[in-house]
Amino acid sequence: MLKDQQRIRRLKTALGKASLDAIVLRLPESIVMAFGVWPLNGFSYGLFTAADGPVALIAPSCEDEEMDGCWADHVIWFAWPKLSMPDPLEVIRAELCGLARRHQLTRGRIGYEGSFELIAPPHGSGDLRVPAESSIRYLKSILPSAKWSDATPLLYQQRAIKTTAEIAKLRIANKVADFGLKKFHDSVEPGISEAELASLTYAECFNRGVGVRGVRHVNVYPQVASGLSTHRAWRPCVSTGRRRLKDGEIAMLELGLCVDGFWADVTRVKVAGRPSAVQRRAFKAVTAAQAAATAAIRPGATAERPHQAATEVFIKAGFEKQIVHITGHGLGYCYHEPEPFLMPGNMLKLKKGHVCTVEPGLYDPAWGGIRLENNVAVTGDGAELLTRTSNKL
Amino acid sequence: MLKDQQRIRRLKTALGKASLDAIVLRLPESIVMAFGVWPLNGFSYGLFTAADGPVALIAPSCEDEEMDGCWADHVIWFAWPKLSMPDPLEVIRAELCGLARRHQLTRGRIGYEGSFELIAPPHGSGDLRVPAESSIRYLKSILPSAKWSDATPLLYQQRAIKTTAEIAKLRIANKVADFGLKKFHDSVEPGISEAELASLTYAECFNRGVGVRGVRHVNVYPQVASGLSTHRAWRPCVSTGRRRLKDGEIAMLELGLCVDGFWADVTRVKVAGRPSAVQRRAFKAVTAAQAAATAAIRPGATAERPHQAATEVFIKAGFEKQIVHITGHGLGYCYHEPEPFLMPGNMLKLKKGHVCTVEPGLYDPAWGGIRLENNVAVTGDGAELLTRTSNKL
Repeated sequence: MLKDQQRIRRLKTALGKASLDAIVLRLPESIVMAFGVWPLNGFSYGLFTAADGPVALIAPSCEDEEMDGCWADHVIWFAWPKLSMPDPLEVIRAELCGLARRHQLTRGRIGYEGSFELIAPPHGSGDLRVPAESSIRYLKSILPSAKWSDATPLLYQQRAIKTTAEIAKLRIANKVADFGLKKFHDSVEPGISEAELASLTYAECFNRGVGVRGVRHVNVYPQVASGLSTHRAWRPCVSTGRRRLKDGEIAMLELGLCVDGFWADVTRVKVAGRPSAVQRRAFKAVTAAQAAATAAIRPGATAERPHQAATEVFIKAGFEKQIVHITGHGLGYCYHEPEPFLMPGNMLKLKKGHVCTVEPGLYDPAWGGIRLENNVAVTGDGAELLTRTSNKL
Repeated sequence: MLKDQQRIRRLKTALGKASLDAIVLRLPESIVMAFGVWPLNGFSYGLFTAADGPVALIAPSCEDEEMDGCWADHVIWFAWPKLSMPDPLEVIRAELCGLARRHQLTRGRIGYEGSFELIAPPHGSGDLRVPAESSIRYLKSILPSAKWSDATPLLYQQRAIKTTAEIAKLRIANKVADFGLKKFHDSVEPGISEAELASLTYAECFNRGVGVRGVRHVNVYPQVASGLSTHRAWRPCVSTGRRRLKDGEIAMLELGLCVDGFWADVTRVKVAGRPSAVQRRAFKAVTAAQAAATAAIRPGATAERPHQAATEVFIKAGFEKQIVHITGHGLGYCYHEPEPFLMPGNMLKLKKGHVCTVEPGLYDPAWGGIRLENNVAVTGDGAELLTRTSNKL
């Protein structure tokens, strides 16, 4: 990724306004935002200063290829993991001490990621390295005379409004997701299992995604629910199993996808065989609700307005009792970001650069669940649809 | 899972010895160990006391089905996530206060998970909830008169030695992994891509795994490297791409797999078409090194001994320069646990109940990489091989 000067400038300004001289970053999602590279293991330390921006990334040597293109003035390697290596924490300590001296931070005001409770996995998502209490103690012990403070709110605020380059990356993530959505749509038929649908989606995103427009790494998190149990598929996590679709049953794909650190979060439904009358009616209502919510997204509108627009459609169509959840959430540097929540009572004004999901859904134990989810960016005068695959039942 | 009295007794004893009256658990891996259920979202709070064991689990209501079988005396639900719901943190606060009064913990000594830096994802592994600084502050504010202490070392020690029931669970996780290993072995041929091999493995583990011996949830993390680039596949995370295998090239599958919270970590290699002489020679050496390391695992042996045994085989076969990493690590409640590391200088005595990987490997830019990885449990007088799929080139 080309150095995103807009992001670097914004982050420098934000640090200055918060009276911070620098910030030390560990979470992969923060490294992506401030250094332009996606760590494989989540074991890197980035130093970003208010004066000079991304001055140094201290990274494990096994990630040398992947850190290519990093925005840092200096990438500093520590050996890891090898049969014999110096203690990485001692190497990192020495490097951070040296950097602090060179950048006059020894007694500086420094931010850290203290309160990220919901985090995105690195590329290696079976194993996650997180900065827990011990890491924060370790950081503070390296520069005991510095004034350390939790910069979590600052970082969330920063990423709530995406830059032009970041929105371009989210377009690519959605393009890769589109490959999976089409494959899912073409594959739903009586007899196929939830797991098979998930696997086909997974394979398609990899096979067509890696290499497209410079994409290096893809992580795919497909979840497939089927049949009547889709009425519980409003849950953030459903279990993909070996259940096979019967004629006339709904399959719902919830697809989380990360492309070089940038997330897409999309959902489609398809009926195996012929949809029933109520399935058609609900699908029509959800499609209309999604269109109404998307049309309500523009700079200056409150974040509750798209939710109200979707709800009005549902009420008119006689589906008020089948509403379970809010209409959207922020996303970009992780699967679910807090700003903007499209929900009742949220008087936040939407701004150019906000990116969110639009995902109205209806759920009924009698016939199942239908949700459609796209990703949308707020533009100067409206909304740009990032997800291009159309909805067909 | 049936209530594991052995685990509950051990954990109660350990709390007593550490002068803790109770522990509050948030991480999915800890909930699995102490409550017998695997959270979908990682947003549960478990209270385990030295006097009474697993007294209560406070869990989101959307996980009602999945928490079935929980060992807690009481499962307490909070609404989440719904369009309208009381603030979950306020509900959890009130419930924990009430529990603390009933169990005389208001001024008690209470442990928490402060320093887990490497964690396992919950079933929903695109989104991770971790107890960061804010969670720990929140916990402490609920019972401000209690004496809180970081119980991370206690928990790591507890899980280093598995109970009989836990080893049975790890046998099942390996059985599910075996499905994937066989599928991988049968699928490697010229023309197939890394991503296709990963997807086939993924599908097979789901389709055959869910339902086997009571298995509810399976998470699959396959990574496939191919060709000469396998010489860098000693890295903890490799990128699975769209590259297609050519005749005579190595494919390496690293498979992390989680079954209801219990992990398997296995690796196989296979050549597409006819293996070359050096590939055969290296494969033979790795197979022999793995057998020698496994034979060296028994109660009372030092944890460096299996590594030495593997290394001796490699040196004799002329492959000393191709050794990169240690021979094994603990596992069970996550992909990589610290005890026991099979590595030079580790004088820890192996004990019955230790579970580890045995994964010697050789890596050479001239011909690629070959690693074979099984999971092994230390028994009363030797080692039990949990991974049953044989190695064939």
